[in-house]
Amino acid sequence: MTQIYNFSAGPAVLPKEVLQQAAADMLDWHGSGMSVMEMSHRGPEFISIYEAAVRDLRLLLNVPANYKILFLQGGGLGENAIVPMNLVGRVSASATTPAAIDFVHTGSWSGKSVKEAARYANVNVAASGEAGRFTSVPPQSEWKLTPGAAYLHLCTNETIDGVEYNFVPELGDDTPIVADMSSHILSRVIDVSKYGVIFGGAQKNIGPAGLTLVIVRDDLLGHALPICPSAFDWSIVAAHDSMYNTPPTYGIYIAGLVFAHVLRQGGVAAMEQRNIAKAELLYAALDADDFYQNRVEKDCRSRMNVPFYLRDETLNDKFLAGAKARGLLQLKGHKSVGGMRASIYNAMLIEGVQALVDYLNEFAGRK
Amino acid sequence: MTQIYNFSAGPAVLPKEVLQQAAADMLDWHGSGMSVMEMSHRGPEFISIYEAAVRDLRLLLNVPANYKILFLQGGGLGENAIVPMNLVGRVSASATTPAAIDFVHTGSWSGKSVKEAARYANVNVAASGEAGRFTSVPPQSEWKLTPGAAYLHLCTNETIDGVEYNFVPELGDDTPIVADMSSHILSRVIDVSKYGVIFGGAQKNIGPAGLTLVIVRDDLLGHALPICPSAFDWSIVAAHDSMYNTPPTYGIYIAGLVFAHVLRQGGVAAMEQRNIAKAELLYAALDADDFYQNRVEKDCRSRMNVPFYLRDETLNDKFLAGAKARGLLQLKGHKSVGGMRASIYNAMLIEGVQALVDYLNEFAGRK
Repeated sequence: MTQIYNFSAGPAVLPKEVLQQAAADMLDWHGSGMSVMEMSHRGPEFISIYEAAVRDLRLLLNVPANYKILFLQGGGLGENAIVPMNLVGRVSASATTPAAIDFVHTGSWSGKSVKEAARYANVNVAASGEAGRFTSVPPQSEWKLTPGAAYLHLCTNETIDGVEYNFVPELGDDTPIVADMSSHILSRVIDVSKYGVIFGGAQKNIGPAGLTLVIVRDDLLGHALPICPSAFDWSIVAAHDSMYNTPPTYGIYIAGLVFAHVLRQGGVAAMEQRNIAKAELLYAALDADDFYQNRVEKDCRSRMNVPFYLRDETLNDKFLAGAKARGLLQLKGHKSVGGMRASIYNAMLIEGVQALVDYLNEFAGRK
Repeated sequence: MTQIYNFSAGPAVLPKEVLQQAAADMLDWHGSGMSVMEMSHRGPEFISIYEAAVRDLRLLLNVPANYKILFLQGGGLGENAIVPMNLVGRVSASATTPAAIDFVHTGSWSGKSVKEAARYANVNVAASGEAGRFTSVPPQSEWKLTPGAAYLHLCTNETIDGVEYNFVPELGDDTPIVADMSSHILSRVIDVSKYGVIFGGAQKNIGPAGLTLVIVRDDLLGHALPICPSAFDWSIVAAHDSMYNTPPTYGIYIAGLVFAHVLRQGGVAAMEQRNIAKAELLYAALDADDFYQNRVEKDCRSRMNVPFYLRDETLNDKFLAGAKARGLLQLKGHKSVGGMRASIYNAMLIEGVQALVDYLNEFAGRK
């Protein structure tokens, strides 16, 4: 096997020991004679896999007892519709005007959320980083929030723009904060109790694409609109332990292996220390001179997704070809913003970041 | 490894060679140095996997050029809402009354479809097998169809009730037929051109849970209701080759391995002959005397899902324990109907059915 380092933004690199375990289990999980893919989701074998995954995730994020952990389908984009279908009924039921949802627009993903939510409610962009071309998180002092909003939606790490929140807003009222943490969940310590809902597609720090994680506070269940499909009604999903319909069983199994792996690595706090070290190493190489450029304000730079540009963009193809030849894969930036992007999720080892930094220095002709 | 035969209704048994290939590819797909789970869905490696899967499925089902093959998420239950969200706009846009959808109620799954569609349209049960406790498909001559209905919904194989259509209705107008084929797709030759939409969860004859297949005729695209999430709007999904959002990439990969396997086995016609032989073997053992009972009318019996009851139901636990001791797994019937159920999908070898028949005879004390 070629030694490669995979900087894909997602689906993304997984811990090698997780893949080794998955390969070993593929035809016969724990002597059952079955692959995990072949198990009834209602049988004792799969139930044990599910329960361990939920237990380990609760431990990793210190999820309070009054929050449910749900496994759904549809990814981040699906959830952008599923969230309002589940939450706008919280305030609009007795009102004569449609519910309002507040958004802070910090990049591509929060932008998609606004668009999708507009199907179900009045959307209010309380603050936007668009004028600055999404290079910072607008400070909370500038947010124009709607009194009585159904919720406030944040994308706490913008995968495409490389912008990450370094604070949790304190709203001073009971408006729930909904956070799309798709691309940085499990990468840093969070206080779940500060949020009403945390959601994310699995395919960055958790497991395979096709699995969506939702962590929701109990009092936010039970408000789904009549047009919300049963499969995506959080209260139905919660009442059936994510098995009202057949869940993505193999994705839950892989996620469970990842959760157990992160626990063995020392948990989220230990991952965060490694992620800080990896990000510092990479940003330092980008900042060393003006050969490369990351345009995000320093205190809003993502530790997970690092977009950068070559000063001379005519060298882009040469840069990517040289990277590939060294086993540094999937560095091309998102088509909407161009340039390069290195995603350095939990499963990216510091050795991979060092290999990239070595190449950055070499390509820039630095001594 | 224990030799077992897995009769789960789904997630269900997969071909052994598919699992062997998946295990071999797990850490390094085709020398790429990546697991399929780690690949960007927009990279050349995954695109080649996706294109092969679509091409092979088109070949297997002889899908006409004016039908799109889509990979979604949400399973059969999700699709029960997604179908009306995509199709009722076809007729209601200019009408003063809500669109109507016709259903033939043949068991548990078509019943769930009626309930879910009622969120979006007037639902009309054109015929029901409920009076006969879902032991037959009501003949088409008895169906009371609605003129101008948005579509007619059929569940052509009822997984829980073990009832399967042995005909395709000819409606005599242009009302599209939507068929939920979750539990018998690829098990028998079908004429796709007779249907407007064919859909199914993958976890019976196709691959892992979490992947949903939709085959839709081009003219039925473009009618989604404004409340339909982008992730589930077939026209958006079709326009982006199932990659508007991140698709369940690993599920598509496994499905592709299954499609290639079925082609090597001689295609769907060859699978159908084997399925006929397997079903005949099993039903003959159930019908041999009155020790066991399958209550479905003979010409409506499913070749895939065979529910049966012991005459003396006090022996149920003993029957299941004896089966398990012989490696005959997951034979307990669905909780809603009780009894037993043997699901004998494509990947169940006739040796497995023979082993079950041997046990049925032994347990019944037959010479």
